[in-house]
Amino acid sequence: MNIAELAQDHVSKDRLNRTLVELAQFGGRSDGGVSRETLTDIDKASRRYLIDYARSLGCTVSIDDCGNLFFRREGLQNLPPVLTGSHADTQPVGGKYDGAYGVLAGLEVIAALNEAGVQTERPIEVVSWTNEEGSRFGPGAMGSSAFVQPDRLAEYRQSVDPQGIRFGNALDEALAECADVPRVAMARPMAACVELHIEQGPVLESAGTPLGVVSGIQAVRWFTVQCTGTMAHAGTTPMGVRRDAMVIANAIANELYALAPRTATAPGTPELRMTLGRWQVEPNSVNTIPGRVEFTVDMRSLDDSELDAAEQALYAACKKHSGESEAAVVSKFFHRAPTYFPEGMLQVIEKGCTRASGKSGCHPPMRLTSGAFHDAMYLADHCPTAMIFVPSVNGISHNAAEETDLKDLVLGVQALAYTVVALACE
Amino acid sequence: MNIAELAQDHVSKDRLNRTLVELAQFGGRSDGGVSRETLTDIDKASRRYLIDYARSLGCTVSIDDCGNLFFRREGLQNLPPVLTGSHADTQPVGGKYDGAYGVLAGLEVIAALNEAGVQTERPIEVVSWTNEEGSRFGPGAMGSSAFVQPDRLAEYRQSVDPQGIRFGNALDEALAECADVPRVAMARPMAACVELHIEQGPVLESAGTPLGVVSGIQAVRWFTVQCTGTMAHAGTTPMGVRRDAMVIANAIANELYALAPRTATAPGTPELRMTLGRWQVEPNSVNTIPGRVEFTVDMRSLDDSELDAAEQALYAACKKHSGESEAAVVSKFFHRAPTYFPEGMLQVIEKGCTRASGKSGCHPPMRLTSGAFHDAMYLADHCPTAMIFVPSVNGISHNAAEETDLKDLVLGVQALAYTVVALACE
Repeated sequence: MNIAELAQDHVSKDRLNRTLVELAQFGGRSDGGVSRETLTDIDKASRRYLIDYARSLGCTVSIDDCGNLFFRREGLQNLPPVLTGSHADTQPVGGKYDGAYGVLAGLEVIAALNEAGVQTERPIEVVSWTNEEGSRFGPGAMGSSAFVQPDRLAEYRQSVDPQGIRFGNALDEALAECADVPRVAMARPMAACVELHIEQGPVLESAGTPLGVVSGIQAVRWFTVQCTGTMAHAGTTPMGVRRDAMVIANAIANELYALAPRTATAPGTPELRMTLGRWQVEPNSVNTIPGRVEFTVDMRSLDDSELDAAEQALYAACKKHSGESEAAVVSKFFHRAPTYFPEGMLQVIEKGCTRASGKSGCHPPMRLTSGAFHDAMYLADHCPTAMIFVPSVNGISHNAAEETDLKDLVLGVQALAYTVVALACE
Repeated sequence: MNIAELAQDHVSKDRLNRTLVELAQFGGRSDGGVSRETLTDIDKASRRYLIDYARSLGCTVSIDDCGNLFFRREGLQNLPPVLTGSHADTQPVGGKYDGAYGVLAGLEVIAALNEAGVQTERPIEVVSWTNEEGSRFGPGAMGSSAFVQPDRLAEYRQSVDPQGIRFGNALDEALAECADVPRVAMARPMAACVELHIEQGPVLESAGTPLGVVSGIQAVRWFTVQCTGTMAHAGTTPMGVRRDAMVIANAIANELYALAPRTATAPGTPELRMTLGRWQVEPNSVNTIPGRVEFTVDMRSLDDSELDAAEQALYAACKKHSGESEAAVVSKFFHRAPTYFPEGMLQVIEKGCTRASGKSGCHPPMRLTSGAFHDAMYLADHCPTAMIFVPSVNGISHNAAEETDLKDLVLGVQALAYTVVALACE
């Protein structure tokens, strides 16, 4: 038995469950959810919990300028470490596992290695990234993206939360409270990175498969479409002279929805996903013709050329329904190309997953793509990276009702243990 | 010259303009608009201004249980009076003429009769209705609808404004401040009612005609459509499993807009007017599939059977796009059948308008229908009623920019003077 298998076999369901339950108490809610937004007092208390637990496992703890926490188990050689982990912050009302699971899974791998009494060639580091959610301070994935490209931090520090608190100030306070934790450089070389996360979607559950090998992350583009009409009385204004901003918006929306048919596709097949999620209507009154309608477009695909085509179709639809005037104006406010995780990484993960699921008599792992962003998306710019997914019950996430069976959570950590240790022994 | 012509010829531009300027100072804004919501301190001060001015013209002032003010010039016989007037309250930000013009026009008719030194057979009463706008306390047209059907008042008294003040309490205070004004019965017999108002739409202006004979008021029906989907992550949820409330809403909206083409029709031709004015989207986030979308439907036509067909089409569209589940639910929350003003009334008005426009070298009057509600809509249930319109510059209303040329305002009062006096001498 190689030590990757040894590590996998020493993953403890009870120890994992205990730490999941303990961490969920920081911001835990009576409905089973967790409210632990980044750098709040609750989040800072949970950081101390992680530091203490990691030290109890013999880890060296360090922190970087963006507040990312690293828990290191040394290897036989002083080489760039294999990184695993995720984030411990949540949405305003989130679940117990989104992020937290990946961090505690990493620490469970270290606990398993300790129990097995083996050493890896490379060091293993478990990371807890700062502000993945982006709900309190925008944008999301601040910690991981700043780690990869540290010059992003200066701008992030200016981000202000709804209470007027600046991210830079909140961060400095959190760093001051970790005066006992040595500072470590950002953008340090890493041998590889593996992130274990709940799927937050329905694919694994509907396939009846507990383990997913994530081959990439969809590209995304975000737009606002501003439609301008003329506010006027719904009763007195004849149809022939109206300029109704909602009529324009509706026509554009109609063309966008037609681009993304609601038909089932095989998992992993690129499909265009189209969501018009945020709408503002002015003056928003039953008997007034809307003078202004703004809506957002979230378009995603694993195939960037499909997004190119959809973006062109959006511009064309706006032009078509604007008529002579500039009635519909598009602006793009975020975009990210697709992330393809390297095949070599996927094969290591597949081995770990296949062994874990085989031993427990489950369906073999399947490959799928991630529809959501993750810290791994940014790490993929820095080192060979990939992800492992476990199922989300009913595909629900960002919600107190977020749930995953404990046996699936254990399988995920077993797959992770194999993968991290195999990579750390290459 | 008959006395209707005499009254018409004694309308004074300067006197009318002076009272319009004076009344507009109650709640007057630096942008030219007026903020004088019903039963506010400003509105109550303006009521005192109207009482004092009417008394200076020799009128007897009375008030009813809904705070409607009546300014009476006696006739030769003790017969039911001819009623004219409108309302003095405004939208939160309204214009100088919406309502106020009709009240001051009535008082100008009395001033003209005084100057001409003539008596009518019937008394003439000028009314200032309470709470036509409905912006502070809903519904609108409380005063006129309660006058016509006094049992409505008990329910109106329970209406609460955004500050938590009950209409009944605000009304009792206003009545107490008018202790010097004798109370008069509601639902008193009236010989006829004529309301002069700005058009609040573009029809007269685009026809180049200063005077409109209003032949009726469109029917209206108000609905809410509630579309229910499943809130989910925009990135992780495949198109094939989505239930997107906005997709459902968009499809229904699309069918509704198709019912009401945006083509020019001749004024007075029944056309279906369709406005989807108020939208609420939950959770209204760029990267979350809308779980719930509610929108309002305001449909109007002079032809009630056209509304019957549109209402059926609305139900059919909701059923079609709901699929198996009850994804789209319609509820009707207001409806009013069309109002047709009697031909006899229109002919008297037409005579008055034709003589006024002829003397000033303007286009002859045209017939048109009202797209908006007016107090006259309720009075039509009580006595022979009709309306006169003057143009609104650019069709703008419910807006500080509301404007009408003074010469058009004078023509309107001349037409009103003729009509009221002719009716009071029948």
